Amino acid sequence: MSEREFLQKTFENTVVNFNGSLIKPEDATISIFDRGFLYGDSIYEVTRSYDGKILYLDQHIERFFNSAKLLSLKIDYSHAQIKTEVEKTFKALNTPNAYLRFMITRGVGEIGLDISKVYKNNLVIIGRVQKPNPETWYKDGVHFIISSVVRNSKDSLDPMAKSGNYLNSILAYIEAKEKNAYDAIMLNKDGFVTEGTTNNIWMVKGEAIYTAPLSAGILKGITRDAVFEICSKNNIKVIEAEFTPIDLKNADECFFTSSIREVVPISKIDDTLIGKGKPGELTLKVLQLYQAYIKTL
Amino acid sequence: MSEREFLQKTFENTVVNFNGSLIKPEDATISIFDRGFLYGDSIYEVTRSYDGKILYLDQHIERFFNSAKLLSLKIDYSHAQIKTEVEKTFKALNTPNAYLRFMITRGVGEIGLDISKVYKNNLVIIGRVQKPNPETWYKDGVHFIISSVVRNSKDSLDPMAKSGNYLNSILAYIEAKEKNAYDAIMLNKDGFVTEGTTNNIWMVKGEAIYTAPLSAGILKGITRDAVFEICSKNNIKVIEAEFTPIDLKNADECFFTSSIREVVPISKIDDTLIGKGKPGELTLKVLQLYQAYIKTL
Repeated sequence: MSEREFLQKTFENTVVNFNGSLIKPEDATISIFDRGFLYGDSIYEVTRSYDGKILYLDQHIERFFNSAKLLSLKIDYSHAQIKTEVEKTFKALNTPNAYLRFMITRGVGEIGLDISKVYKNNLVIIGRVQKPNPETWYKDGVHFIISSVVRNSKDSLDPMAKSGNYLNSILAYIEAKEKNAYDAIMLNKDGFVTEGTTNNIWMVKGEAIYTAPLSAGILKGITRDAVFEICSKNNIKVIEAEFTPIDLKNADECFFTSSIREVVPISKIDDTLIGKGKPGELTLKVLQLYQAYIKTL
Repeated sequence: MSEREFLQKTFENTVVNFNGSLIKPEDATISIFDRGFLYGDSIYEVTRSYDGKILYLDQHIERFFNSAKLLSLKIDYSHAQIKTEVEKTFKALNTPNAYLRFMITRGVGEIGLDISKVYKNNLVIIGRVQKPNPETWYKDGVHFIISSVVRNSKDSLDPMAKSGNYLNSILAYIEAKEKNAYDAIMLNKDGFVTEGTTNNIWMVKGEAIYTAPLSAGILKGITRDAVFEICSKNNIKVIEAEFTPIDLKNADECFFTSSIREVVPISKIDDTLIGKGKPGELTLKVLQLYQAYIKTL
């Protein structure tokens, strides 16, 4: 099988928007002199739609601009232009439930670190049909490990910037797969829980829900924000606080949040069952509240 | 000017080898589904030739394989195959003094962190005509800053792996350019000197030369190794030891080493002149010994 055939097969229900033009996935190429390719010098966002409506698109675009700012990456597009292109991609996909990934690179330029010698942004949007989450996640929960890979520190490459430099999380994910786990929880250099490789981590202790504060070095999750809002409306206590892997393993319940996967129970961390080793009651309540809430948006 | 015209102009004396085929720079494109593009999930090396001979190519390929190992990146090529392709690119360039950059990506694959769903490596080699270093470097030295961007820690993304995740160094370089400096020196989280954004850092104090140990979290420079060898042969004392920015600023001389730029005097760090603010005597001696030595290889 050629690479082209592999791409055709893998990306069957996929649409690509390249600088405003809709093209087939197998035809979607970029210059090898693009800094996104040479240096991972790019930013991205991922969101999804439900029943024909893109969720939190404005918030994702706002975070996109914030990532750009953290990396001194000049964006040649306006918020409205990016929104138009994401919506165009979504329409072309012609599915009610879509996965949408948009990214901007610093563009092609001279080889080397000098960002003054660049041409202009390349904008790439990938739209795919989003399948429902597996039922087993809600029956059994998923298994995480505590990774030995330390999350990028804020003063090296702030996890708040969603960028094309993903090896730190990839290394943690590889470790999880080697241990047959679903994903990995990363700690910061002080040993506190930060986040999963592509999600925010939560624990339930007694009546309250805890999650790491932004100061721990995490991405400001948009679903994380939504959970704060939902809990506030439903009188569920949420506390942002630093906590350790031991705290997590002794929690009554654990779960993760992600824009694509919503709220997912974690039933095991390393070899330790969380609570009864099944999805927790409050976790499933938060999931239900989240699903109901986003329908109202 | 279109991107294509920009590429034609910028990469005039450039040859690209893409998976074994020699192509024009403006035609050198890669799938947007390549993990090198989406995640910076790639490794690379840069070397150069002198008078028709590629310097330390075997050592660069060995380090390339070591980078791959650190990232669990399976290389579908043998050492000999990579060597053949780099040499082919060099020959096509038809210049005695070439810049040669070779990289391998984990390949195209499913979107996400799962490396089991990839097709196969993409190999990209860029060959360019290498211009001589500016004379001013040797008359005046260059100006570095101490960056506020902390070098990636070894337990997050080991600087020993030369990868496509370059934002950490790019942020430091941007800071240097904002201060009109040539480049930036990065510290580790304990405040010790690690390396420049694309080079190793050295200081002279009295009769000895100092450079950061590998344990500080640096790339094992091939020119760094050559300097050890040369100094050993010429009874110049070299010490690997941790040192701080204050030590550096109080040094008699400073310089950096790089495969492309050899040995270059640093005459100023932040606002502090090093020694007399001119290239140091021992620095220029090391440069001379290095240039003589590589002619014998």
